[in-house]
Amino acid sequence: MAHYMGELFGTMFLIYLGDGCVANISLNKSKAQGAGWLTVNIGFALAVGIPVYIFGPLSGAHFNPAVTLGLAMIGKFPWEQVPMYIACQMIGCFIGAALVWIQFYPHWGVTEDKATKLGVFCTGPAIRNVGANFISEFLGTFVLMFAILGVGNTKAADPAFGALIVALIICVLGTGIGGTTGYALNPARDLGPRIAHAVLPIAGKGDSDWGYSWIPVVAPICGGIAAALAFSMMF
Amino acid sequence: MAHYMGELFGTMFLIYLGDGCVANISLNKSKAQGAGWLTVNIGFALAVGIPVYIFGPLSGAHFNPAVTLGLAMIGKFPWEQVPMYIACQMIGCFIGAALVWIQFYPHWGVTEDKATKLGVFCTGPAIRNVGANFISEFLGTFVLMFAILGVGNTKAADPAFGALIVALIICVLGTGIGGTTGYALNPARDLGPRIAHAVLPIAGKGDSDWGYSWIPVVAPICGGIAAALAFSMMF
Amino acid sequence: MAHYMGELFGTMFLIYLGDGCVANISLNKSKAQGAGWLTVNIGFALAVGIPVYIFGPLSGAHFNPAVTLGLAMIGKFPWEQVPMYIACQMIGCFIGAALVWIQFYPHWGVTEDKATKLGVFCTGPAIRNVGANFISEFLGTFVLMFAILGVGNTKAADPAFGALIVALIICVLGTGIGGTTGYALNPARDLGPRIAHAVLPIAGKGDSDWGYSWIPVVAPICGGIAAALAFSMMF
Amino acid sequence: MAHYMGELFGTMFLIYLGDGCVANISLNKSKAQGAGWLTVNIGFALAVGIPVYIFGPLSGAHFNPAVTLGLAMIGKFPWEQVPMYIACQMIGCFIGAALVWIQFYPHWGVTEDKATKLGVFCTGPAIRNVGANFISEFLGTFVLMFAILGVGNTKAADPAFGALIVALIICVLGTGIGGTTGYALNPARDLGPRIAHAVLPIAGKGDSDWGYSWIPVVAPICGGIAAALAFSMMF
Repeated sequence: MAHYMGELFGTMFLIYLGDGCVANISLNKSKAQGAGWLTVNIGFALAVGIPVYIFGPLSGAHFNPAVTLGLAMIGKFPWEQVPMYIACQMIGCFIGAALVWIQFYPHWGVTEDKATKLGVFCTGPAIRNVGANFISEFLGTFVLMFAILGVGNTKAADPAFGALIVALIICVLGTGIGGTTGYALNPARDLGPRIAHAVLPIAGKGDSDWGYSWIPVVAPICGGIAAALAFSMMF
Repeated sequence: MAHYMGELFGTMFLIYLGDGCVANISLNKSKAQGAGWLTVNIGFALAVGIPVYIFGPLSGAHFNPAVTLGLAMIGKFPWEQVPMYIACQMIGCFIGAALVWIQFYPHWGVTEDKATKLGVFCTGPAIRNVGANFISEFLGTFVLMFAILGVGNTKAADPAFGALIVALIICVLGTGIGGTTGYALNPARDLGPRIAHAVLPIAGKGDSDWGYSWIPVVAPICGGIAAALAFSMMF
Repeated sequence: MAHYMGELFGTMFLIYLGDGCVANISLNKSKAQGAGWLTVNIGFALAVGIPVYIFGPLSGAHFNPAVTLGLAMIGKFPWEQVPMYIACQMIGCFIGAALVWIQFYPHWGVTEDKATKLGVFCTGPAIRNVGANFISEFLGTFVLMFAILGVGNTKAADPAFGALIVALIICVLGTGIGGTTGYALNPARDLGPRIAHAVLPIAGKGDSDWGYSWIPVVAPICGGIAAALAFSMMF
Repeated sequence: MAHYMGELFGTMFLIYLGDGCVANISLNKSKAQGAGWLTVNIGFALAVGIPVYIFGPLSGAHFNPAVTLGLAMIGKFPWEQVPMYIACQMIGCFIGAALVWIQFYPHWGVTEDKATKLGVFCTGPAIRNVGANFISEFLGTFVLMFAILGVGNTKAADPAFGALIVALIICVLGTGIGGTTGYALNPARDLGPRIAHAVLPIAGKGDSDWGYSWIPVVAPICGGIAAALAFSMMF
């Protein structure tokens, strides 16, 4: 049970701090409004890294169905635990998004732009183009998964240091390629909060852009599995 | 005695460097004026982390009544030392704020906005709403305390590395959720400097917003204790 | 073979994430557009550091002909492997640049400025002046190579930590002296992507500034060799 | 001899990268122009930290007469080496400043503001006030010296990690209190480059503000010695 709880609470903290960061810099009247892209890159990186420190010893801190599936594909994680891991990740991300809604409760009503409000919860394309958006998320998740496996292969996988490297990997993906689709790179990180956006009574919200929602689910899964296979061939 | 001195000097350094950072970026004619939110997030994070390095070996570096009370509640800190720890934290934060006043002495008179000057010393709400502000500080301190306990549980608690992780926790709370109330997350960090604002002869100061002052005291204490209890049930 | 693959894949990741960062902050409609210089400094630093973590155990992670030649010059790397190392670095940088082209595919057509598009791939002078530009790249690479050798001399060369220091060296060169020529400091990092710019069908591209292209090749090689000789005399 | 060379080359690198950072963000036509205060905080922090990694094993990496004198005062450094240490620090800072002049050679002529050019080399007050400026530099250096001694007391003094902490101390002083006087905190860092500004044929330079120059020399020495005495009483 403890490992499932680790995934659920870890992803809850991740989204509370990560989607919180987007709310923090984009909602009206927030003291952090306008803090900019680097703040999100550093904020989301630590929003992943700190929960990895806390919950890594419990669950291995996948926090991402693409990682869980990729590890299972190359025999580094038991298939029978995959469904519960993904369910816990989805639930954790949903609850985390609900906490962001609560944390910023008075700010939703004073923010008019519906796209800004959706953007707190989930990602969207800078330029809508199915093929290009898919490839962006595929390539980004490929690098994410390959880097996680690569670092896990070295002495840096030490519990006291590995979580920091994971945070740096998230940071470099945000600075490096995040501007095309908002770097979901994680089906639960995108879909869980999108469902929260759809069901929570957020003041003045718009639609949840379901037409785009499959890309940050399917592309990261493909990218994560491809990277796991590539890595196990190379190393 | 050394452990009490550790808390007093540690919080003095914390506020000198942390409230100093807010003065640095917001007072008129400061070379750092306008440096922005990420500078405060990084600045306050290190303002906590560096004193943890220095004074951690003396006192354990709580620097926060919410942390001291939370630890006492779960049997990780002796109740009989709690009053002196909290007193030293309050005194240290007060002296640190006085040093900020001295450090930026010629800048107070050339800064007209009274809210900016109060904002150097203590926190305030982005949107005034007792319930929402309370919950913001409660949730933030819950995550702070849970993360401190979580990291302390791992090998990252090594003295050479643990202080850096604490700094990263402060950073991610600032980037993630600080925009709603200014992330006090610490009764001494807010109340000590607020008292300093009230009693020091700061040029052109306004009132000290005592109406709000109980929230960054009570909410962090509740959040810290709740997190300590939750953590001790889970781990 | 594995060490050659390490150089090829490492430089591919480096340019995907590093040139990606420049695309991210400068191409039109990117969500990161305008994120600024510090984002590039941190982004490029990690674009080097993360591949060093992953591929360091395979190849030593030179990722730079100036480093490879400098190490060979002082007997720390076998001359017979130099040609293949440099070839792999060039190929990796070329492929990485092609991946940046793909990652940002819809953004090239909506970005009018030809210099911005070239700037994603390779460096150029802030003020065109052969002597000054040569010296800028020479001095920067001298410090880069000297610092790499210096850090490799200490306990910080530990695999779990050395890659982070390398990232910090790249960061401080960007913040410290990058504004004169864009800090190539690496012939493969500049020439590989410049060739990619020349041969790929990038929408609305201009010329590839071949007149400048020899400086970020020759000056870094001279600087790297000079630093290696100076270091081996001093330490 | 090696320890004297360590101080000389270390401070040379420090100023090349640190004053370079100020040139980088402030001189006209630099690609980094306008990058802002946080870039300087991070840039100067690493400009100290990286040379500490490289030259720490040779000389202990004081890089600062206030540190050398403070250590000598409490018996942690031999008085007979103090004069040569300080001489090497001054020479290194002078040469580093000359390298910045060369690195940015074409940029001096296109930058009109004389104060900007002086500001690349040495510090100056935000508001000119002898007493307040002295106290600012005194307090800042007190914290610098106390923190260095405090960290050196812990396991973080490990060569692989201590240099990073020193960088973080420089960073937090910049973010926390640097805006009042530009945080010299080091007589050699300020006076060496000020002499370089005075003697080098910098295009369109103004005067070197000798009237202020004694403050960033005397105040840091007083602060460093006071901190060393305070620390040795407390720990």
